Amino acid sequence: MRRKSQRRGGRQRDPAAIPQLPWRQVVNPYRPLEFLSEDQVEAIHQASLKLLENIGIEFMSPRALSVLSEAGADVDRDGQLVRFDRALVQELAARAPSSFTLTPRNPERRITVGGNVVCYSTVGGPPNVHDCERGRRAGNLKDYTDFIRLAQSLNIVHYIGNQPCPPVELPAEDRHLDCYLAAITYCDRVFQCTAIGAERAIDGIDMMAIARGLSRDEAIASPGILTNINCNSPRRYDGAMCEGLMAMADYGQGVVVTPFTLMGAMTPVTVAAALTQQNAEALAGIALTQAIRPGTPVVYGGFTSNVDMRSGAPAFGTPENARATIAGGQLARRYGLPYRSSNANASNVVDAQAAYESEMSIWSAVMGGANLLYHGVGWLEGGLTASFEKFVLDAELLQMFSEMLRPIEVNEATLALDAIEAVQPGGHFFGSPHTLERYETAFYQPLLSDWRNYETWEEAGSPTATERATAIWKQLLKEYEQPPLDPAVAEELEAFVRRRKDDIKRQAA
Amino acid sequence: MRRKSQRRGGRQRDPAAIPQLPWRQVVNPYRPLEFLSEDQVEAIHQASLKLLENIGIEFMSPRALSVLSEAGADVDRDGQLVRFDRALVQELAARAPSSFTLTPRNPERRITVGGNVVCYSTVGGPPNVHDCERGRRAGNLKDYTDFIRLAQSLNIVHYIGNQPCPPVELPAEDRHLDCYLAAITYCDRVFQCTAIGAERAIDGIDMMAIARGLSRDEAIASPGILTNINCNSPRRYDGAMCEGLMAMADYGQGVVVTPFTLMGAMTPVTVAAALTQQNAEALAGIALTQAIRPGTPVVYGGFTSNVDMRSGAPAFGTPENARATIAGGQLARRYGLPYRSSNANASNVVDAQAAYESEMSIWSAVMGGANLLYHGVGWLEGGLTASFEKFVLDAELLQMFSEMLRPIEVNEATLALDAIEAVQPGGHFFGSPHTLERYETAFYQPLLSDWRNYETWEEAGSPTATERATAIWKQLLKEYEQPPLDPAVAEELEAFVRRRKDDIKRQAA
Repeated sequence: MRRKSQRRGGRQRDPAAIPQLPWRQVVNPYRPLEFLSEDQVEAIHQASLKLLENIGIEFMSPRALSVLSEAGADVDRDGQLVRFDRALVQELAARAPSSFTLTPRNPERRITVGGNVVCYSTVGGPPNVHDCERGRRAGNLKDYTDFIRLAQSLNIVHYIGNQPCPPVELPAEDRHLDCYLAAITYCDRVFQCTAIGAERAIDGIDMMAIARGLSRDEAIASPGILTNINCNSPRRYDGAMCEGLMAMADYGQGVVVTPFTLMGAMTPVTVAAALTQQNAEALAGIALTQAIRPGTPVVYGGFTSNVDMRSGAPAFGTPENARATIAGGQLARRYGLPYRSSNANASNVVDAQAAYESEMSIWSAVMGGANLLYHGVGWLEGGLTASFEKFVLDAELLQMFSEMLRPIEVNEATLALDAIEAVQPGGHFFGSPHTLERYETAFYQPLLSDWRNYETWEEAGSPTATERATAIWKQLLKEYEQPPLDPAVAEELEAFVRRRKDDIKRQAA
Repeated sequence: MRRKSQRRGGRQRDPAAIPQLPWRQVVNPYRPLEFLSEDQVEAIHQASLKLLENIGIEFMSPRALSVLSEAGADVDRDGQLVRFDRALVQELAARAPSSFTLTPRNPERRITVGGNVVCYSTVGGPPNVHDCERGRRAGNLKDYTDFIRLAQSLNIVHYIGNQPCPPVELPAEDRHLDCYLAAITYCDRVFQCTAIGAERAIDGIDMMAIARGLSRDEAIASPGILTNINCNSPRRYDGAMCEGLMAMADYGQGVVVTPFTLMGAMTPVTVAAALTQQNAEALAGIALTQAIRPGTPVVYGGFTSNVDMRSGAPAFGTPENARATIAGGQLARRYGLPYRSSNANASNVVDAQAAYESEMSIWSAVMGGANLLYHGVGWLEGGLTASFEKFVLDAELLQMFSEMLRPIEVNEATLALDAIEAVQPGGHFFGSPHTLERYETAFYQPLLSDWRNYETWEEAGSPTATERATAIWKQLLKEYEQPPLDPAVAEELEAFVRRRKDDIKRQAA
């Protein structure tokens, strides 16, 4: 039985083309998993309020300290420690929207952040890159651009993470401009900017605005870019993160506030303590966004995993990671905030471990109510490497997961008693009219999975999933189509980059 | 930081020993996932009652037809088709217990089937066996016995599936006796017997009873063995399955009734139709168990996956499989019956695909409320191969999953505000007294996952998870300890096998 025509809307007609799902916003229509009782959520909430009131969070930025002080927080005059009255922090957090949209240069690729929508991003941040043909190497602009192209080629990727592999051959002070330019040129989707300091964030906002024909101020009313702000856990927002956060809030752009809480290292070893600390740190960062600009689109980030206590090495997709992820979703929902989690793993290679740790991450995140799945495709080696094969593997995992979430249709046509009656006991349904009408679109068609029988698979060279992934990313890059961009806009972006590089050189001189 | 002493109860003191969780019944304390609304469950229930009333199920056994007729079902006099009044089938199904226990020769390895307990079994049935050193070969008694030894060595395996790899070098008519003997000799846990006809089932019951010092009749009050009965879908219970089912019910032993419903082949392509057919077929088989002996311990089995419509090849761990698994749990719970699902995948090799399809199976099954996860460890290649490496991989997946399900403790000691306060902003918790008191048991210690950094892992030869699994099953077999068995019982079992083999030869002559 061969496919004769186009599958569910948006699939390619070319029979040689790689099958994939159409672009769509993925909805999780089901009640999220809950691993904490209501009482337990309340106990963690109360403990984190106590932490904020009595112990405090450090903000290493004079402006942040001044803004929070003005908002009513108690700033330690000799230091940088901020204590929040419990009413104050909740009042500030309550100013944030429960969901928002981000509009990239192609408005058809607009994403909703919140509600029961879940968006998947590329990996962001690894210093290294790997593929099975060329091996492991330092991040660079060529590979960075290829990851952007792959993201554009895969409909399941909703947005670009912060620098899939930072191009470390470029000067640290202005490489973000090359990254933004490539993200906008080769992909028409939302991208995350780097918020290490205000300037990098504002450059991202400006370039997003130029790409959309808006001024920086016009973009306030229509946010189009996102960043991730890590709390340098325990209990510290460093200066660069504070400035980046505040710049994004100044212009009403999306901020994800993510405490970096690896249990055993940056928090106590118990899940309850880690969640308490995560919650207090997240609320403090969220409060700052709302003290700057009420209504700033902000996301509650959870990144609570554990370290290997024998070596101190971070671990991901662990049982403790999954428990904290699911519980973290309950906390985010308690405050009516969108929730960010990750697709992470600690494997050194794209193997069974990479797959099962990622599945543990994806299931706990999405069934735990995550709205953003950061590092959705391509993360390997605890985040130290962006992998081309993992990019393809993850696209398959996320497609499968998203198909699974589609509601089951129950009606006379799908219950199909007549079709059942028409086949004799012990018979089969291959030739049933009910089957023939539906077989082309009835089931998910995999991107990577190989269902050939053993003999056929062996004759084809016994390729593993990882080996097949190599062929797929190569084909995707070969077939990549650059999304159209108005040449005037392209020129304006290039001119912006030239001007800003000159500014930055001048400042450094 | 090195482990100095024993981890959570039952872990080995020997630092070289393979770390694993202690034996325990795994409880899923959380509300099961629900992919169907109450109305949808009701619609499928009603459609399956219509199917049972109007379309009917074939039972290819005179005794089954007679028993069902006596119970009040409408047996087509010209054929073998049985139609069930909707009240009758529900009344019969309602006789089944909502949970039961099975007691093997070691009463400490007793398992509960039902409630919120989930039990994991070995794979059962593949004609082939594979490991990475010796390749793929036909099932045989040596490998069979090694799988039994591995099951005994791994605390996460709660029971033995029906013949992890049938020893096809032995005569088909009496190899079940060798299998039972090896299962009892090398493992002290519950094992599944083969219910292809009454004799194989009764041999299993007798040997289970001998191993426990019980008579066949005494075992009725204390069931100790389980079987799986497949409906030969669509709508047919063949003669051997009927006889096997009835023999088990005669002696009050555990029966899992599992329609073999691959969408597109044995059912229509729609999930709603497949569930309707599965539900009708399961209820019909369950009704037969209760017509034979009210209160027979019986399990609602779900095995609804799909085929690849291009080739007809079965697929597992697919989005459709996961949706049907979760919905199937809702149906089983509607009738107050324990639920059986599977850990299945269609990969030809222990690679990323094997891992992600298995994770899809495990998550949907266990979070969908499954009580028995059949083929829990070792299934590969759509069930055509039992794999040594997959056995180890699955043990890791199931251990991780079970650890994740442990409730999160929230109390003053775990919230640990004092410990949080004692570490300065930006500091770390490695040396915190709260950490030092707990670090040895705080986190799951993996069986297979490798969290070494890239350089150390590379120096160790860059082993993939599959390569590491080879080393682990070899070490487990080397360190295997045979569970003690009273020599008199061993002799009685051997005598039983000799006598039965003679009977079978005489019958055949």
